[in-house]
Amino acid sequence: MNPKIDVNCDLGESYGHFRIGHDSEIMPYITSANIACGFHGGDPATMLHTVRLAKKSKVAVGAHPGFPDLMGFGRRDMGLSKEELRSTVIYQLGALEALAETENMNLQHIKPHGALYNIAAKKDEYAEALIEAVLNTNSDLIMFAMPDSRLAELGTEAGLKVAFEVFADRAYNSDGSLVPRSREGAIISDTGIVASRAVRIVKERKVTAIDGQTVSFNRIHTICVHGDTSNAVELAKSIRKALQTANIQVLCVNSFF
Amino acid sequence: MNPKIDVNCDLGESYGHFRIGHDSEIMPYITSANIACGFHGGDPATMLHTVRLAKKSKVAVGAHPGFPDLMGFGRRDMGLSKEELRSTVIYQLGALEALAETENMNLQHIKPHGALYNIAAKKDEYAEALIEAVLNTNSDLIMFAMPDSRLAELGTEAGLKVAFEVFADRAYNSDGSLVPRSREGAIISDTGIVASRAVRIVKERKVTAIDGQTVSFNRIHTICVHGDTSNAVELAKSIRKALQTANIQVLCVNSFF
Amino acid sequence: MNPKIDVNCDLGESYGHFRIGHDSEIMPYITSANIACGFHGGDPATMLHTVRLAKKSKVAVGAHPGFPDLMGFGRRDMGLSKEELRSTVIYQLGALEALAETENMNLQHIKPHGALYNIAAKKDEYAEALIEAVLNTNSDLIMFAMPDSRLAELGTEAGLKVAFEVFADRAYNSDGSLVPRSREGAIISDTGIVASRAVRIVKERKVTAIDGQTVSFNRIHTICVHGDTSNAVELAKSIRKALQTANIQVLCVNSFF
Amino acid sequence: MNPKIDVNCDLGESYGHFRIGHDSEIMPYITSANIACGFHGGDPATMLHTVRLAKKSKVAVGAHPGFPDLMGFGRRDMGLSKEELRSTVIYQLGALEALAETENMNLQHIKPHGALYNIAAKKDEYAEALIEAVLNTNSDLIMFAMPDSRLAELGTEAGLKVAFEVFADRAYNSDGSLVPRSREGAIISDTGIVASRAVRIVKERKVTAIDGQTVSFNRIHTICVHGDTSNAVELAKSIRKALQTANIQVLCVNSFF
Repeated sequence: MNPKIDVNCDLGESYGHFRIGHDSEIMPYITSANIACGFHGGDPATMLHTVRLAKKSKVAVGAHPGFPDLMGFGRRDMGLSKEELRSTVIYQLGALEALAETENMNLQHIKPHGALYNIAAKKDEYAEALIEAVLNTNSDLIMFAMPDSRLAELGTEAGLKVAFEVFADRAYNSDGSLVPRSREGAIISDTGIVASRAVRIVKERKVTAIDGQTVSFNRIHTICVHGDTSNAVELAKSIRKALQTANIQVLCVNSFF
Repeated sequence: MNPKIDVNCDLGESYGHFRIGHDSEIMPYITSANIACGFHGGDPATMLHTVRLAKKSKVAVGAHPGFPDLMGFGRRDMGLSKEELRSTVIYQLGALEALAETENMNLQHIKPHGALYNIAAKKDEYAEALIEAVLNTNSDLIMFAMPDSRLAELGTEAGLKVAFEVFADRAYNSDGSLVPRSREGAIISDTGIVASRAVRIVKERKVTAIDGQTVSFNRIHTICVHGDTSNAVELAKSIRKALQTANIQVLCVNSFF
Repeated sequence: MNPKIDVNCDLGESYGHFRIGHDSEIMPYITSANIACGFHGGDPATMLHTVRLAKKSKVAVGAHPGFPDLMGFGRRDMGLSKEELRSTVIYQLGALEALAETENMNLQHIKPHGALYNIAAKKDEYAEALIEAVLNTNSDLIMFAMPDSRLAELGTEAGLKVAFEVFADRAYNSDGSLVPRSREGAIISDTGIVASRAVRIVKERKVTAIDGQTVSFNRIHTICVHGDTSNAVELAKSIRKALQTANIQVLCVNSFF
Repeated sequence: MNPKIDVNCDLGESYGHFRIGHDSEIMPYITSANIACGFHGGDPATMLHTVRLAKKSKVAVGAHPGFPDLMGFGRRDMGLSKEELRSTVIYQLGALEALAETENMNLQHIKPHGALYNIAAKKDEYAEALIEAVLNTNSDLIMFAMPDSRLAELGTEAGLKVAFEVFADRAYNSDGSLVPRSREGAIISDTGIVASRAVRIVKERKVTAIDGQTVSFNRIHTICVHGDTSNAVELAKSIRKALQTANIQVLCVNSFF
């Protein structure tokens, strides 16, 4: 059997007149869209518009909740209490779900955004808040998480469907964590390199870390493509093409569970 | 048969550390809670807390969506496009619904807040956006509207359940519109007067306007009690007591449809 | 003596990670930068960065205050009281002034943004709030206003320096008002047409309205170039070049008073 | 010579319709008002109103800048870069200064709010950003800081006037740090206890920590009274009265430098 993978991208992050990303151009190359929910980015009209774009391209939609920090784009650490975080995530989930339902779309997954994603990988309290938000609303939602993260471990324990996510366009440390954006070399923009990393990730479940060592993954469900870099469309296209050339099936992540 | 009425109040309007209203004290005297949804007031944790309070007091919950204007508490006119308004309302409905569902509560109704309520009474485009938001998400929701408002008329035409709302603690113009808050005498705070106005409203479907004339209503489903005045609890208590003394049944509005 | 004109552009409207405009590319072609102040766009770090860019290009800086409506980019009507508006404008002025002073730059002018600019052209209360904000803080600030607007008239009466502003890339109605952005043909993007309109505006103080009639201006001090259109840099470059070819001096507006 | 002390309070933290604190009632009992600047609380109209209140009561005004986190009231940790923080503080300083100047008031001091105050006590980068903001705008501003904090140490090194602040209504750990608000016993509300703590703080420069040990201060310039507790007015009144009874002069902090 051919290997298979989901390709996801963060979309719908524009806010009113403030445009971010290349949503309509990227849609054809992905299978799962993580839609911002109004806190770190996204506004109601943008969210609805993005759901429609996804529907047209037969791309599955998921929630991409973030910290309430529009100015920091959800990329700054914030100290919320577990209860604040839980209700904040449920709020965002519900808002997107209602908009998706007006287009007869159901949410497939949830992927926490930015600093929330990174903190929930290490901090039990945040991971638990996310997991409870899913259990309290729609326990069928697939949780996107880094392999070996606390979010992945606790989510699995709690009985959630957890999709292990890998990044083809981000540098890895040898311990499997991402090199922070602020560090040089954190973002890989060469389409050829990213595409071949993507193929190796799926075929061998391996990626070369920034220090030259090899990081191995037990299991991988989805590859993230960033949508807000200048050559994001090119990147997405290259990855998709390289995966197909390598006989890898690109499918919505819900077909894996 | 005894006359009957629903008593509603705007609640959950606190925002983080900024407390507004007397939510827990007012709950015992009302039957329907209009819960702010995060735009003019309310934050996720407050919304969840308010749902729990309502549940404990067996009070029905509804959405109280407003303009995206926290600084102006949703009381300032804002020029949104119909599509912006529609998605903004769906967003707020969905967010509250998800939080309510975690407490096994369903939304009973929707009541637009502040300037949105007032503009939708006169402007078809805004009324239509609200109506479509309900039809697109949960067409069982009861729409609260002023009698003779465009929102009431268009909502009825569209097949929505429309609850006609009257205010016992606000002065009326002789044409049935509310005296604007900025005008003197707009807010009636004497508990005795408010209570007897409430009884007359239900029994006779009449209220005395600010110019001494009589305003008549064909039908009334619910009376609004304001929760953010200094004597709001006293007012709510007096109204509830006066209604009971007058042998008026106080029931959730959903029992009328 | 050669005719002379100031060329201004709205800049610094990015918000955190949300980038708008082509600030650094446009700077070389303008003489006055209207810097957003954090309400409709702009954040403290962006504002400071924009002041630095202007300083490097020897471009004068001014405040570009807007309504507190980030989601609507300050382009939606909002009903503020005069006192709310006055203090809101003083707040924004002071914030930018402090940031400018850290770079030893003084504010040259103030240009209200979007809906505030349009409403203040017609509504005395808003014009007065803007004028008082200037008189209360720094009465040397030059107020940018449309010719024949109430803001221009009342500002002149109050003793303010008022710079009459004309738009080369926006269509005019025959009464001298701008064709609203929502109407087709409101934005003129052909660089040749815009450049020759600019030259005619300065030399003849005339522009052809959307209905073919001619609009005349008594006096003109500054031409606005929009910075957020896709070909904004090309436009600014063409205008600047055409003005120079026509022997029109392009100077900071403060040299006219 | 009699001992002397400044009494300060955080004021102007209301946001639009959201009222916090008892500003007008507390003014008569304090000598320095820390006015919120629109980020964790405060809006332009409220800020101006608070400046006027202070002026009427002959209370000195200072800036009380906070994190951009209205929902969390600036009490949640946030990870800003040094440059983000510096420009954010300058922005808030300038905004308040402009509003104060319209009432012919000058800013006397700056006191960082909430989490910013606490983090700047320990983290050099945040302390430096605050210090640079003062040096870049108005180096005469007195910086309020906890004794032994990094903000106090680095501020003194940089040549700033630093006022050492002590809290009479907050419990201390034996190392001189504040017991976090989340811990029981963190807030002391008994007016008698708070008043006698205040007197002892000024006379002996000592306070009893939560574990019974004694915390000593080398020097103290100002005592903070919290304005948002239910008995804040009573507390302020009791402290002021107790200080006077003990022959302690209560003076604006600027008279100490």
